[in-house]
Amino acid sequence: MRLKSVQGGRVGHRYGRDYRPRTPRGLVSRALGAETIYLEEVEKELEETVGEVNRTWGGDFAVREGKWKRLFQDAKVEGRTIVHLTMYGTPLQDEIAELRKRESFLLAVGGPKVPGEVYKLADYNIAVTSQPHSEIAALAITVHDLQRGEELKKVFGDYKLKIVPSARGKQVEQKP
Amino acid sequence: MRLKSVQGGRVGHRYGRDYRPRTPRGLVSRALGAETIYLEEVEKELEETVGEVNRTWGGDFAVREGKWKRLFQDAKVEGRTIVHLTMYGTPLQDEIAELRKRESFLLAVGGPKVPGEVYKLADYNIAVTSQPHSEIAALAITVHDLQRGEELKKVFGDYKLKIVPSARGKQVEQKP
Repeated sequence: MRLKSVQGGRVGHRYGRDYRPRTPRGLVSRALGAETIYLEEVEKELEETVGEVNRTWGGDFAVREGKWKRLFQDAKVEGRTIVHLTMYGTPLQDEIAELRKRESFLLAVGGPKVPGEVYKLADYNIAVTSQPHSEIAALAITVHDLQRGEELKKVFGDYKLKIVPSARGKQVEQKP
Repeated sequence: MRLKSVQGGRVGHRYGRDYRPRTPRGLVSRALGAETIYLEEVEKELEETVGEVNRTWGGDFAVREGKWKRLFQDAKVEGRTIVHLTMYGTPLQDEIAELRKRESFLLAVGGPKVPGEVYKLADYNIAVTSQPHSEIAALAITVHDLQRGEELKKVFGDYKLKIVPSARGKQVEQKP
């Protein structure tokens, strides 16, 4: 599966203060098998964090700058299905079978300031519950279901450190 | 399914700055069917946000103060299975069949400052990938898989506002 994620419009958060949600969003996209995250404005901090995570834990997940509209256009040309995550959309569980027929996606995750056009231009507006919670949780569950959990087995090449799963405690393998 | 979540030890974040992760953690727990979130220290802000969300969108999700060790002891007495989420644990996909045999859970989510005892006293140490990402994403995927996605259909009683899922745009029903 080919997967990109994009921030669809200005990031905001309905409840609570701004809590710098971009770093976890990038790391979640990476850990769960996306190739790239696009943001309208890339913060240096996020770029550095992702670079450090790639060097340490492997893989070549990318952070890019891009405007959502242009990315939507590119996605259409590339044959990517555009899925916009919003609590107003149709339930994930009602669309997942249909979505799984597709091979490549652009996932758009925004906040309350998402322009109305995003709703119109997306192929699907999808809700992970119609309750307010977290864009990161919605992204995680969608990506997990789209890939039927296969993303949890992803191997990241060219790592310095690798965790050896263990029932108790912490075990880390260091590349010689 | 009966589900509680607890912050297992001091909250921290391995990468990036502290981004006040407690509000989304509470809202994710609520949206995905947990009864209560326990924190070692309850911030007024989180309590107010959850109260406002309950009044507006329904349900009676609770925020409580509690020390992880005491909660672990109570969980054992109540017959709850304690699942500690950590990138060092055994893969979720390897344990999910076993976990689904249980009826009630205490989910412990911490940061890098989690005491070693948490690893020992938990019934399971579970990893949602062994990659660094987000405790909120790990919590969301675990709760989603434990409940086989049934939590997405949860109905929240006694609401003022309710979203009517729609393919385009925003539709909200207001209780008369």
